[in-house]
Amino acid sequence: MTAPTDHIDATAPAPSDGALFEGRTLISVDAMGGDEGPAAVVAGCSLSAKINPDIAFILHGDKALLGPMVDRDPHLAGRCDVRHAAGVVSMDDKPSHVVRTGKDTSMWATVESVRSGESAVAVSCGNTGALMAISTIRLRKLPGVNRPAIAVLYPSANKHGFNVMLDVGADIRADAEDLLRFALMGASYARNGMNLPKPRVGLLNVGTEEHKGRSELKEAYDLIRAQEIEVGFDFVGFVEGGDISGDRADVIVTDGFTGNVAIKTGEGTAKLVGLRLREAFKYSVLSKLASLLAYTSLRRLQRKIDPRRVNGGVFLGLNGTVVKSHGSADATGVSAAIKLAAQLAQNQFNDKLAARIAATLPVEETPE
Amino acid sequence: MTAPTDHIDATAPAPSDGALFEGRTLISVDAMGGDEGPAAVVAGCSLSAKINPDIAFILHGDKALLGPMVDRDPHLAGRCDVRHAAGVVSMDDKPSHVVRTGKDTSMWATVESVRSGESAVAVSCGNTGALMAISTIRLRKLPGVNRPAIAVLYPSANKHGFNVMLDVGADIRADAEDLLRFALMGASYARNGMNLPKPRVGLLNVGTEEHKGRSELKEAYDLIRAQEIEVGFDFVGFVEGGDISGDRADVIVTDGFTGNVAIKTGEGTAKLVGLRLREAFKYSVLSKLASLLAYTSLRRLQRKIDPRRVNGGVFLGLNGTVVKSHGSADATGVSAAIKLAAQLAQNQFNDKLAARIAATLPVEETPE
Repeated sequence: MTAPTDHIDATAPAPSDGALFEGRTLISVDAMGGDEGPAAVVAGCSLSAKINPDIAFILHGDKALLGPMVDRDPHLAGRCDVRHAAGVVSMDDKPSHVVRTGKDTSMWATVESVRSGESAVAVSCGNTGALMAISTIRLRKLPGVNRPAIAVLYPSANKHGFNVMLDVGADIRADAEDLLRFALMGASYARNGMNLPKPRVGLLNVGTEEHKGRSELKEAYDLIRAQEIEVGFDFVGFVEGGDISGDRADVIVTDGFTGNVAIKTGEGTAKLVGLRLREAFKYSVLSKLASLLAYTSLRRLQRKIDPRRVNGGVFLGLNGTVVKSHGSADATGVSAAIKLAAQLAQNQFNDKLAARIAATLPVEETPE
Repeated sequence: MTAPTDHIDATAPAPSDGALFEGRTLISVDAMGGDEGPAAVVAGCSLSAKINPDIAFILHGDKALLGPMVDRDPHLAGRCDVRHAAGVVSMDDKPSHVVRTGKDTSMWATVESVRSGESAVAVSCGNTGALMAISTIRLRKLPGVNRPAIAVLYPSANKHGFNVMLDVGADIRADAEDLLRFALMGASYARNGMNLPKPRVGLLNVGTEEHKGRSELKEAYDLIRAQEIEVGFDFVGFVEGGDISGDRADVIVTDGFTGNVAIKTGEGTAKLVGLRLREAFKYSVLSKLASLLAYTSLRRLQRKIDPRRVNGGVFLGLNGTVVKSHGSADATGVSAAIKLAAQLAQNQFNDKLAARIAATLPVEETPE
C-alpha cells in the first residue's frame, strides 16, 4: 500500500519518509464515497487543512481524478498523499457482497490504513452498511464488545447544543449486555468528543417509570445502574423520545433499529418545519418583506440546527476509530466529519475506550 | 347510570327521553382527566357544540363542579348531560390498579357509556395506559384483533397535511399478524377519518430495501402485500423515519415501542426548532423588528404545525371508538379531539373497520 508508485508527485513525500507528516495526525479518507463525488471530499479536506495545521491526509480513490484536484489546492500541498484504488463501493451494494469482493475499493483501503496503524482514524461518506462490515472484519471488535454501535451527535436543548445518541443503525437489535456496552462507549465518547467529564446517560424507553418497557430494557437498566459510580457517569434512568433533543441526558442509549428510526424521524420533522416556514414567509408581500428583514435571523437559526455542522457518525467498539460522514455531505459536512475524527484521534479516544470496556469485564473472562 | 337523580337540572332532559338529543351524535366525555382540569374540557365541549349542531354530550365527573360550568354555558344548554362520578384516574395510576379499583371513576363511566350503546364514541384526556386498559376490558377486542393500536395524525408534507401512524403506544410489541391488522385498521382510519379512498400504506423499517430489517417485518411485508388489492389500499413497501412526515405514504405502520419513540422524537425536535427560532429573532434590534413584521407569517406557521389542531389518538381494534386527547390539551385541543370523534362516529367507522377485519379472516376461523 505504501509503494512509491502510489504517490501522486514528487512534492508529496511518502509517509514512510514522515518528513512533512511528522507530528501531524494522519487521517485516512475515502474520496470516492458520497453523493457529491470526490470534489466535495477534496474540498472538505482542504477546508479542514486550512483551519487545522496539525492534520494530514491519505486520500484513497481514482488517482487520475484526485491527483489534479489535490495539486491545485494550496492548503493540501505537502499534506495529502493520494493512493490509487480502482474499485468504488456504491450506495446500493450489499455489505456482504462488498466484504467478499471489495478488496480493491477506496473504502477498503481507507479502513486498511487504520488497521495497519499508518493512519490514526478513517473517514468515509460512503455506504454505511458496507463501511461497518469492512470495519468490523478488518479492525475487529474490541474485547468485551459483542455488537459495535454507531454514535451521532443530535441537536439538543442542553448547554453544549448536542446529545450523543447510539446505536443509530450498526445493528437492528441489542440485548441488555449490548446496551450496557453502548452506555459505556457513549459516556466515553461524550468525555472525549464533547469534553464532558461526567456525562448524564439515559436509556431510551416509552416512559420514564421503572416498570415500563421491554424486559431487556429493565435488565439493562440494572446493569447500567451498577456501573454508574465505578465508571463515573450519571445514569438518569429511562428517557423518552422527546429527551433526544432535550436537556435530561447527554447520552441516549438505544438499539440500532429504534435509534435509526428516531434520528430519521427527527431529521424529517425538522425538514418539514423548515418547508412550512418558507411557505409561511412566501404567503404575502408583507411576509416576503419580513423574510428579507429576518434573513440574518433565519440564517443564524439554520447555522444552529444545521446537520452539516455535526456531521459524522462514529463507529464504536472496534480496534480503531471510523467516522461515517453523511452520504450527501458537501465540503462543509466533510470538513466537520474530519474535525471530529481529528479530535477523537488526538484525544486517543479509542485506547481510552478499550481500557474502559476491559476494566468492566469480569476477571475470569479472558478476551480473545 | 341513567337514573334521573344523575341529571343536573330540569332543563337538561334525560337522554332516555331523547327529546333534545334525538338525531344528534352522542359523545361520552371524561371531564376529569387532563392536566388543564375540567374547565378546559367543558370549554372544549362548548367550542365543539357551537360549531357542530349535530352533536351532544354526556359529561362524566364531579357533578358539583361540572354542573355550574355547564349551566353557565349557552352552547351546551340542553345538549349536555352531566353524570356524577366520584373517582378520578390520575396520570400516575398504574393501569392494572385502575382496572381493579377504578369502577367509580369518570374514565370508567366514559367508556361504559359506549359499551352500553348509549354513546357513539368516547373522549378522554386522561392517563393513556389506564384508558387503554379500561377500554380493552370493557369494550373487548374485535374478532381477529390480537393487539389493539393507538393511531395518531402526524404533520406531513402530503397534500392533506397529515399522515396516520400506528401503533404509537398501545402495546410495546407487535408480531407480523399484528402489523397486518394495523395496516388494515390504519387504511380504514385514513378512509373514514381523512376521506382518502385508496390510502398509501408503508411499513416502518431502517431502510427501504426488501432484505432489510427484523424477521417479523419481512413476514409482515408479505402479509400486507397479499391483502393490498382485496382491501383496496396501495402498499408502498418499507418506509423510513423520514417518511413519517413525508409524502411517500398516508399510513405508517409500526409497533407501539418504535411508534411511541418516533412521535415523541418528532415532537421534541419540532419544539427545539421553535425554541431556536425564537432565540434567533431575539438576537438583535433588527431581528426583533423582523419578528414583528413576520408575526403573521409565524402565526400561520404555528397554526399549520400546531399539534392541538390534530389532537386525538384513536384506539383501534375494539368494539367501540375511543379518542385519547393529549393530557395537556386546552379548549382548542379538546375541541379537535371531539371533532375527530364526531366524524368517526358519523361515518360509522368502527362498524366498517370490524367488517373489514372480519372479511380478511380465514373462513375456518370462527370469531368468538
